[in-house]
Amino acid sequence: MILALAGGVGGAKLAQGLAMQIAPEQLLIVVNTGDDFVHLGLHISPDLDTVMYWLAGLDDPVRGWGLAHETWNFMTALERLGEPTWFNLGDRDLATHAVRTQRLAQGEPLSEVTRHLCERLGIAHRITPMTNQQVRTIIHTATGALEFQDYFVRLHCQPVITGINFDGAQQASPSPAFTQSISDPALGAIVICPSNPMLSIDPILAIPNVRESLRRSSAPIVAVSPIVGGRAIKGPAAKILRELGREPSVVSVAEHYHDLIDGLVIDTADTHARSAIQSLGLHVAITDTVMKSKMDQARLAAETIAFATRITKVAHD
Amino acid sequence: MILALAGGVGGAKLAQGLAMQIAPEQLLIVVNTGDDFVHLGLHISPDLDTVMYWLAGLDDPVRGWGLAHETWNFMTALERLGEPTWFNLGDRDLATHAVRTQRLAQGEPLSEVTRHLCERLGIAHRITPMTNQQVRTIIHTATGALEFQDYFVRLHCQPVITGINFDGAQQASPSPAFTQSISDPALGAIVICPSNPMLSIDPILAIPNVRESLRRSSAPIVAVSPIVGGRAIKGPAAKILRELGREPSVVSVAEHYHDLIDGLVIDTADTHARSAIQSLGLHVAITDTVMKSKMDQARLAAETIAFATRITKVAHD
Repeated sequence: MILALAGGVGGAKLAQGLAMQIAPEQLLIVVNTGDDFVHLGLHISPDLDTVMYWLAGLDDPVRGWGLAHETWNFMTALERLGEPTWFNLGDRDLATHAVRTQRLAQGEPLSEVTRHLCERLGIAHRITPMTNQQVRTIIHTATGALEFQDYFVRLHCQPVITGINFDGAQQASPSPAFTQSISDPALGAIVICPSNPMLSIDPILAIPNVRESLRRSSAPIVAVSPIVGGRAIKGPAAKILRELGREPSVVSVAEHYHDLIDGLVIDTADTHARSAIQSLGLHVAITDTVMKSKMDQARLAAETIAFATRITKVAHD
Repeated sequence: MILALAGGVGGAKLAQGLAMQIAPEQLLIVVNTGDDFVHLGLHISPDLDTVMYWLAGLDDPVRGWGLAHETWNFMTALERLGEPTWFNLGDRDLATHAVRTQRLAQGEPLSEVTRHLCERLGIAHRITPMTNQQVRTIIHTATGALEFQDYFVRLHCQPVITGINFDGAQQASPSPAFTQSISDPALGAIVICPSNPMLSIDPILAIPNVRESLRRSSAPIVAVSPIVGGRAIKGPAAKILRELGREPSVVSVAEHYHDLIDGLVIDTADTHARSAIQSLGLHVAITDTVMKSKMDQARLAAETIAFATRITKVAHD
């Protein structure tokens, strides 16, 4: 059994790679829902959708999010009606939001809605939200607090972050499959995908007992660095690290996760950082981590699993 | 001031014709909302949309309902997700439903939502729902009661109708503009558009005091027959008349409205029915009533207004 924690596009790519390597019943992908929001009355789960669309092979590999061959006539019509158009909703993508919204309104938990959508999209592997309760990532800036999508999409991550919190996380509990997986004696490895540590993975870890349960698991925990050569492959991870007073580097990623993980996969471009990470007590694997193709995804997934199975748990304390 | 009562496509065509002839402030179009329903969590007002789209010049003249240059990618995606696809929702049309649903959820009355949508679509003339309360047309058949869209769209009007009622009508009141218009001393004519009398106009007349107030108005009331040569121009009007034991004819339309209207506009194909209608005490105008072009619409509208202004009120009792 492999448990993967994932956020947006980077997470979705490695998750698809893992799905290429692991039998459906032996993989659970837990996805961040701190980015979820209600827009135009629709419940939108951007990270769940990204992971689903990649695993279904329906992803747009250039854009990263949303569906391939998408059209935008709804947005054009919405603009004509004078509505805000900063959040793009593709015509095909809208069907996912409409179905999710309707099922949630009927009282179905998000994990069940996700299971249903995955089944309909022909996804064999299991994808589950981190929680069925509402957790909302709030971005604190010098000029006030922002809802996540306000920060991320409407303001293009431009405001300088002074802090991040996860509204509702303290009242949340992991989704049933996530709970079951953490304590599964057959769990062989926990993989933290190359998603934004602060925005995509921390919300998952903010749910009470998740961090502690993961640490207590006998399965090794390995992360794949989303920072390569001092830059984020996609998104604002490097910018946020800087704003929070940290170097945008693999060492910062190692420090961020150091009391949780046992090993970090870094890119060959960051080979020089190996000893600094090892000095934090962590194992290091070095490979090409930039996933430009399905082949890259499958290879990085295989190497990450192989790394996890050959390292020993680190005694964190 | 002209007050027009309208339902779907036939009503929308004459309403657009009236708008071509009458200054914006001198026309109010009251639209049936008995067909409204909630589908996929969206509040859909089919007749309001049809009238709006025609008046905005955005109509698809062949299909009749919906928007021109529409695309259907949402429906394709919805089908992939295993959802019912009997009710077609175009990608552009969806924006209207999303905005309406959101504004209604925020407590805005349907008349205000409609005013907003009309303004955004560049419609100068006033369109208002018959009521801001919920009225639902229920179709009774030998095998049970059906919601309107179930009957009309899903079952293609195939079930035999035994009766029709308008759930909620007794608790409804006319929308503010409708109320104001009925008692407007400047009201010069009331036009019942060539919409289905039983499905599109009766719901409006079922609202308490509407029928009585219209009758009491000093303005003459003229209807344009939706039946031409024993057939409905569009939709199930002829079929329903037969099922309710009446001839599908202009005389039946005259009988249906006879205690309300003062005159009926019929097609030249029905000239033979003139004396039968006159013997009901009604004035008759004969012209080409099949609207195949904007020019037809404008001409029929002008002739209908001219007819209304030259006839005297009939003493109904």
